[in-house]
Amino acid sequence: MRVEFSLQIYSVTMARHIIILVAVFWFATAEASHCSINGLPLVRNISELPQENYGRSGLSHTTIAGSVLHGMKEIEVWLQTFAPGFRTPIHRHSCEEIFIVLKGQGTLYLTPSSHSKYPGNPQEFHIFPNSTFHIPVNDVHQVWNTGEQEDLQVLDVISRPPVKVFMYDDWSMPHTAAKLKFPYYWDEECYQTTSRKDEL
Amino acid sequence: MRVEFSLQIYSVTMARHIIILVAVFWFATAEASHCSINGLPLVRNISELPQENYGRSGLSHTTIAGSVLHGMKEIEVWLQTFAPGFRTPIHRHSCEEIFIVLKGQGTLYLTPSSHSKYPGNPQEFHIFPNSTFHIPVNDVHQVWNTGEQEDLQVLDVISRPPVKVFMYDDWSMPHTAAKLKFPYYWDEECYQTTSRKDEL
Repeated sequence: MRVEFSLQIYSVTMARHIIILVAVFWFATAEASHCSINGLPLVRNISELPQENYGRSGLSHTTIAGSVLHGMKEIEVWLQTFAPGFRTPIHRHSCEEIFIVLKGQGTLYLTPSSHSKYPGNPQEFHIFPNSTFHIPVNDVHQVWNTGEQEDLQVLDVISRPPVKVFMYDDWSMPHTAAKLKFPYYWDEECYQTTSRKDEL
Repeated sequence: MRVEFSLQIYSVTMARHIIILVAVFWFATAEASHCSINGLPLVRNISELPQENYGRSGLSHTTIAGSVLHGMKEIEVWLQTFAPGFRTPIHRHSCEEIFIVLKGQGTLYLTPSSHSKYPGNPQEFHIFPNSTFHIPVNDVHQVWNTGEQEDLQVLDVISRPPVKVFMYDDWSMPHTAAKLKFPYYWDEECYQTTSRKDEL
């Protein structure tokens, strides 16, 4: 009777351990597959790709094909939706960038690179459905959904991924004071995972 | 009377010369502005950009932002429409390429790079609206509108523009026999103009 009881306790404990082990294994695999470039189908449905706001209310971001998520080395494409009033930070990056406006309207603020110590007053450009524009390397810019009702949706192509973004508080902040955000919001989780793997 | 008549002839001849000169100047300017990156507005309406088939029936190509036309150095974006039955050549290029299918369906044929002397039988992938896929550097591929009724429309992003394309007659043609097409169809006119300018 005592032996039977001990065996019963042992079985319950072992079952618990197995459940914990399975759970740990499941979470670890889920994390790995989310950030792993292996096993992804070559042709992917864009509407099934992860879509997040990365803590920034009014933003929806999807990396259609990227460095950290899909192993691209030279180009990266994002699909982004800005709710009315949403704006990117004032920022610059040392890569080329091409925008295609799929729907909605807004304003591009841009200061061409100069020898000035800070960006200064930007030029304003109206952006509209089916329009395209590109941001020259290192030009300080901001894209703003200045509309009141409609979402602004853009496809955004960059070179030299993953993007390294220098952010400004305002247009009179010195270039040298701009803060580097790297990895950028959408690269953060999987860039760290990849780095950890590289270190092993 | 004789002098008057001579003057009249002279005036008519001069007027003709002026007309010819103006026409020549107009054509020269039109050619220059068509291929020049100066004076283009930063924000452009995609539906107003040149759209051509470059002698290939069933194709409509627009360079949304490119090396030869807009001075891009690292990325280039095309909008292409393939009529039912239209297909790209079997080809490879030493750049990355990302496709986004805007509408229509078709088939991607792709042979991953290997140590074989020729591409061999390609894998087939169904491509559909709102799908995306990328072509690894130097993989031999072909995109075919295998539909019977609907156009296939894609956005096509490449790195390292302008593109240098190696074309194959079929999947058993040796890699070393593939023919280089450079500048590619849509870069031909303005690439040559730019080259001529560079030589001056």
